[in-house]
Amino acid sequence: VKKSNVVSSILGKHWQQAPQNAVGKAFAPTNIALCKYWGKRNQELNLPLTSSLSISLGNKGAFVELTRQDGEHDIVILNGQPVASDASFYKKLVNFLDLFRPQNAMRLRADIQSNIPIAAGLASSACGFASIAMALNDLFGWQLNTTELSILARLGSGSASRSIEPGFVEWQAGSREDGMDSYAVSLSETWPELCVGLLIVSEREKILSSREAMQRTVESSALYPAWPAKVSHDLVELKQAIANHDFALLGKAAESNATTMHATMLSAWPAIQYAVPETLLAMQTVWKLRSEGLALYFTQDAGPNIKLLFEKHNVATIQSHFPQVEILQPFKKGKHI
Amino acid sequence: VKKSNVVSSILGKHWQQAPQNAVGKAFAPTNIALCKYWGKRNQELNLPLTSSLSISLGNKGAFVELTRQDGEHDIVILNGQPVASDASFYKKLVNFLDLFRPQNAMRLRADIQSNIPIAAGLASSACGFASIAMALNDLFGWQLNTTELSILARLGSGSASRSIEPGFVEWQAGSREDGMDSYAVSLSETWPELCVGLLIVSEREKILSSREAMQRTVESSALYPAWPAKVSHDLVELKQAIANHDFALLGKAAESNATTMHATMLSAWPAIQYAVPETLLAMQTVWKLRSEGLALYFTQDAGPNIKLLFEKHNVATIQSHFPQVEILQPFKKGKHI
Repeated sequence: VKKSNVVSSILGKHWQQAPQNAVGKAFAPTNIALCKYWGKRNQELNLPLTSSLSISLGNKGAFVELTRQDGEHDIVILNGQPVASDASFYKKLVNFLDLFRPQNAMRLRADIQSNIPIAAGLASSACGFASIAMALNDLFGWQLNTTELSILARLGSGSASRSIEPGFVEWQAGSREDGMDSYAVSLSETWPELCVGLLIVSEREKILSSREAMQRTVESSALYPAWPAKVSHDLVELKQAIANHDFALLGKAAESNATTMHATMLSAWPAIQYAVPETLLAMQTVWKLRSEGLALYFTQDAGPNIKLLFEKHNVATIQSHFPQVEILQPFKKGKHI
Repeated sequence: VKKSNVVSSILGKHWQQAPQNAVGKAFAPTNIALCKYWGKRNQELNLPLTSSLSISLGNKGAFVELTRQDGEHDIVILNGQPVASDASFYKKLVNFLDLFRPQNAMRLRADIQSNIPIAAGLASSACGFASIAMALNDLFGWQLNTTELSILARLGSGSASRSIEPGFVEWQAGSREDGMDSYAVSLSETWPELCVGLLIVSEREKILSSREAMQRTVESSALYPAWPAKVSHDLVELKQAIANHDFALLGKAAESNATTMHATMLSAWPAIQYAVPETLLAMQTVWKLRSEGLALYFTQDAGPNIKLLFEKHNVATIQSHFPQVEILQPFKKGKHI
């Protein structure tokens, strides 16, 4: 099964349709996985070996405007700067856009405003591909539902499937070969007290893409075979924690899931270590504060940065210990960008 | 099965015997596991869940003199300093000595000279209990063989079973409930070119004993179930590497075994992280140098320090990149202490 088969199956007769609007606009939030997506069963379609569960980060994400572009080349603008056509981000984006113009007849200009550090482990590709999928839907007037958008976004980047909707989102792994049952669904629960604290310890491009890290881990880690059972366990705990607003359970399940994912990487060959010294120090501070009674947990993605998890009544304490933290309230209403 | 049953079974009628000599002396080398001992099937007897394989570090270790002591208390001297009777090291040592004086009638003075940092992940308890077992054998005149000494040393500390003999040593896990088939055997191969470089990044007492870390990992890590198969695989590779003096295979198997052991700890709850920032930096330097073609690997035990593995012809290069490294040649003949 190819990506184009999936797109054709979802768009049907609309696949060949011309844009209905002059401009397509969309915002997609980035998301942070509380239970990670780590390992693919299909590289082409970004089908995961396990389900995963994330929280969308409110107004942190990417806003896209898509317009038709005269000339021979697509134009990609990221935060006001043109992206060179030999950059890997440009190529990935054009490959994704190509899926939606089978006759290859139309060039596009994608103007992307992101308010999160690119490639610093903050799931920038998640909100990037999700916002592009949604903006295409707007531009062409396809009127797709969130399930269809989630599947299309997944073709760009697996975790983008979880960036279509706000709040808690579960990406169901599915089992079909064509992935038509592998999409994200929104959990109805909200948790206004919940806060995420971004600790950016390094804005450098990461040393290894999460795509490569994931593949190397699946292929070489002797511990990876135990990962799917860990995910199943953590998903049950996370849903229970969300249903009961049991913060200690949420924090424990999320942190333990993250450290276990990094453990699978450390056991790959060659070993993958995203932590930098500042990452270690931040983790140790979290553990120390928690041992002193503070309800503080963390998660970490395929990068050196740490995301703190805590509740609103602890904001002042967290700020006093982490002066550089950027605090987000995923359930707070507010303007994008 | 109790420790005293094992001692009685090995010493037989000699168990009640008075010392044959005025002083018992012994040296035992510390050892560094190339395939780690991580997880017990029996806490009382220190019986391991898997076999392990180590290299004894030549003249780095502990030298003990045991003498009878008048009065009511044992005396323990470590590097010239009396050890307080409420220190955990004192209690562990006295508990061990008690096994060998069932009527509890005789006090001992143990004068221990160690030339390795205590409790810094350099297996100080391994050479400590091995040297005590050997010194008791000398003091009492039991004339035990190395298999028996290995079993007795194991009762003090699991890895002490591997510190009775020099060179490459395999501790066979065994399967008997009384552990009489769980002891170390010396491999006959030597490898004079092999060097171990100690990178002491922290001499602080470690935050968590390896005993506790091991137990927490076995009980709480979702990845631990995959560890025994990893050990089986690495043991085959290590023995093949030793037989063929295949340094790249030895290094890869040892480093991968160590990072995988630390991965099982990172996936424990609460997570166990022995690395400090300097540990990370040293690991990254190793990976960078290796990517540039240098045959350099590392291993790490339950502590923050790194042990480099390389061959003699690279000594000058290693020293230029790690000015503080202490280089040991496990197979070099020489005086102890």
